[in-house]
Amino acid sequence: MWLAAARADQLDRPGAFVRRDVAGASVLIVRANDGSIRAHHNVCRHRGTQLCTEASGVFRGSIQCPYHAWTYGLDGHLMAATLMDEVDGFDRSEYPLRSVACETWDGHIFINLSDAPSPLSAQLGDLPERFATWQMQDLRLAHRIEYDIATNWKLVVQNYNECLHCPVIHPLLNQMHHYLGAENVPTADFYCGGAMGFKSGVETLSTDGKRRRAFLPGLSGRNRELVNYFAIYPNFLLTLHPDYMMTITIWPVDCARTKLVAEWHFHADEIAKKDFVFEDAVEFWDRTNQEDWAISEQSYRGISSRGYQPGPYSERERQLWEFDQFILKQIS
Amino acid sequence: MWLAAARADQLDRPGAFVRRDVAGASVLIVRANDGSIRAHHNVCRHRGTQLCTEASGVFRGSIQCPYHAWTYGLDGHLMAATLMDEVDGFDRSEYPLRSVACETWDGHIFINLSDAPSPLSAQLGDLPERFATWQMQDLRLAHRIEYDIATNWKLVVQNYNECLHCPVIHPLLNQMHHYLGAENVPTADFYCGGAMGFKSGVETLSTDGKRRRAFLPGLSGRNRELVNYFAIYPNFLLTLHPDYMMTITIWPVDCARTKLVAEWHFHADEIAKKDFVFEDAVEFWDRTNQEDWAISEQSYRGISSRGYQPGPYSERERQLWEFDQFILKQIS
Amino acid sequence: MWLAAARADQLDRPGAFVRRDVAGASVLIVRANDGSIRAHHNVCRHRGTQLCTEASGVFRGSIQCPYHAWTYGLDGHLMAATLMDEVDGFDRSEYPLRSVACETWDGHIFINLSDAPSPLSAQLGDLPERFATWQMQDLRLAHRIEYDIATNWKLVVQNYNECLHCPVIHPLLNQMHHYLGAENVPTADFYCGGAMGFKSGVETLSTDGKRRRAFLPGLSGRNRELVNYFAIYPNFLLTLHPDYMMTITIWPVDCARTKLVAEWHFHADEIAKKDFVFEDAVEFWDRTNQEDWAISEQSYRGISSRGYQPGPYSERERQLWEFDQFILKQIS
Repeated sequence: MWLAAARADQLDRPGAFVRRDVAGASVLIVRANDGSIRAHHNVCRHRGTQLCTEASGVFRGSIQCPYHAWTYGLDGHLMAATLMDEVDGFDRSEYPLRSVACETWDGHIFINLSDAPSPLSAQLGDLPERFATWQMQDLRLAHRIEYDIATNWKLVVQNYNECLHCPVIHPLLNQMHHYLGAENVPTADFYCGGAMGFKSGVETLSTDGKRRRAFLPGLSGRNRELVNYFAIYPNFLLTLHPDYMMTITIWPVDCARTKLVAEWHFHADEIAKKDFVFEDAVEFWDRTNQEDWAISEQSYRGISSRGYQPGPYSERERQLWEFDQFILKQIS
Repeated sequence: MWLAAARADQLDRPGAFVRRDVAGASVLIVRANDGSIRAHHNVCRHRGTQLCTEASGVFRGSIQCPYHAWTYGLDGHLMAATLMDEVDGFDRSEYPLRSVACETWDGHIFINLSDAPSPLSAQLGDLPERFATWQMQDLRLAHRIEYDIATNWKLVVQNYNECLHCPVIHPLLNQMHHYLGAENVPTADFYCGGAMGFKSGVETLSTDGKRRRAFLPGLSGRNRELVNYFAIYPNFLLTLHPDYMMTITIWPVDCARTKLVAEWHFHADEIAKKDFVFEDAVEFWDRTNQEDWAISEQSYRGISSRGYQPGPYSERERQLWEFDQFILKQIS
Repeated sequence: MWLAAARADQLDRPGAFVRRDVAGASVLIVRANDGSIRAHHNVCRHRGTQLCTEASGVFRGSIQCPYHAWTYGLDGHLMAATLMDEVDGFDRSEYPLRSVACETWDGHIFINLSDAPSPLSAQLGDLPERFATWQMQDLRLAHRIEYDIATNWKLVVQNYNECLHCPVIHPLLNQMHHYLGAENVPTADFYCGGAMGFKSGVETLSTDGKRRRAFLPGLSGRNRELVNYFAIYPNFLLTLHPDYMMTITIWPVDCARTKLVAEWHFHADEIAKKDFVFEDAVEFWDRTNQEDWAISEQSYRGISSRGYQPGPYSERERQLWEFDQFILKQIS
């Protein structure tokens, strides 16, 4: 399946890269000289050395292995291999970096480790059309927080998919939304989600409910009065506010540990303003996220223990049942 | 099998609880409103969240899940379940906390994770009669030390079951008992043990051999001159002195790691005295225990290594051979 | 196979020992009273306790178990066993420490965990003859550094077996040798290696290329102008300079972690001199070793990741191909 991996604006020049480690693979996502975005396995074709140990950075025109200096273009082709040209039958064109499928939707870069992936569009379904007015590709990263928590990724998704816990767990969030106020869309094959309106006097999700930035340019009417929450399986939580976007990508480490990358994105015009602030949005969600991670860890400890047996869902947990069906379908 | 888990005097009011984690389960042992002691799996019947993360404490009248606020009585029945009453066919009486068998012997609380356990009395055999004069239920906790050691639980029991190592390992203990002076009782199905008298001038096990507390009220004659050492399988080491009781409960973490809870209990009348002291007994045993844990760790490293092959027992190690037979019987 | 384990000069009196933990075994290598070197499993024959927890030291005449005081001679025979003589049919001669095969080549002590090992000489082949003039048994330890690195032992050997990486990885070493200047000997069953001459003006491998000690006494002519690099499988890297010897023994901890013991040995006559220095040689190699360990760790991460597939060798990596064949032969 396609995994949300990075944002195109973070690769802002040729050579710019991020590294993503997932499912036993290490992948370099790189802006090539022709402006395209490419993904390569982070492994030299000579002796298998990991090419790059940095989490992100900028390659200066090529990618060189630190062991014997095999050198690759940003597009992955092998440019030079020490002493190999004298080896009979050696052909550099046979040893490019192994590529990883990579596609972009509205600024979101996805990778796919399968050898013959379906196109990203098949997984996204109607999402590009649904969120076109948000113009997500014009948004820019302002802040990132990484979390490392003791739970499995499915409990993170389940926690995101219902707000029945909001009155118990989230005192601040519960001041902003009515916890039963979600208007969910019919669950699709690869996502589920819906929108929640604000309580009276609330303008966006920030520490005090005030909105300190202009509406996103494409939004009008009802779209300025709600937050969209979409879980795009398997690893992408997309939260769209009237004035900003929060993304969370989910990176399982093992069955009991998960890394989460939360990012806050704003319109470039807003960021350029002298009085631009983002701390109100970051602090609101960091607090709320940490409440969710703590209960997801506690939930993991419970379902891992010998006394657990599955219990019943309420009507307000339909999306969890649907996620269970999705998981069952994937593993059957 | 029944596991020694706590002492009744530690649950001194309705709602008082301790949590015990063992064999993949997490169990809450709670004093209910009617004064009875109950044990429940520490897992919500809704989504499986761990209900309680504290090691001990007092519930205020009910047990509430921190995720969606399902609420249980101290006896485990489901009192309230958010939004579930509107679900067709949902019946709260079908979702009590899963109970764990729980019985008490003379102040010692035992739990049993089996679905259909034999009564505790069948496991204890003649122990209640044998130790009735010690009136253990009148004793109260004065001090607790928890140890976390790199060995397996069987080596801890084996170490407890023989004193042949005392001259080598325990310089202080060896001043108190003659190491060959144990009068062992015939080994029963679920325990083994015996009594050891004191060397001349010794009154109890304390740093200097002096006894600073009155004899336990029920004891007379010979019982005031010895220490009873009983290993009650699988996890309870009961050491009865003329003036106090030390208990050790054994909690395997994995095959190479074991947690031990040592507690020192004294008569309530003694504890109430102005000049009550217990440090002499605690220091004596803490030092002796740590000597035992160190050699049990070294023993574990040896039997885990490639050069190990089982060796012979002496006549003074009969109880170890009997413990081996017990283990073989359990796993066959 | 025979493993290089220690140096005879480190066991300089009866009772002197070193402990080596390898492949799930713990082994004591001891100088016995008759001057011979013996190796025993570090496990008591009574209850399996590890006898010794120190890495090295001196036993005073015997080896005593710290649990029940069973006592063994330095040659491993059981001298005393508490209370066992009263056990019918117990015969002390049946319970010596389990021995481990142990042989010495020119001061290097090797052990072999197999029950029926071939002689060490069969594994060494022509090495004793090849290096006789270095008189290695007259060399003495001056310095030891232990490394603990996240890679597997085979990548350490592969790294040692080629200098193609020297220009990229080793700025200092590359000033001393020409990286293509190795004169390799034909690879034997259990070793591979060769010699490298110095660049102009270089006398030995030290921080500045100067030689601060006399030539080893047996060396003359060409042997004073090169460094021999021999990987003696499976765990011994022997590096012979005109004026000193560096040895590295390799101790796998698990498939992802390896301990390395590097030692610098000099002639006793040099060590005895007032102005003896060794820091120039140690600092040179410590820096170079750490460069090698870092790239071996990076290499391990690469070959462990999902994107790895084996690549081609150049002609300058013949010894790596031969090592691959050696490994394939051992496991087939």
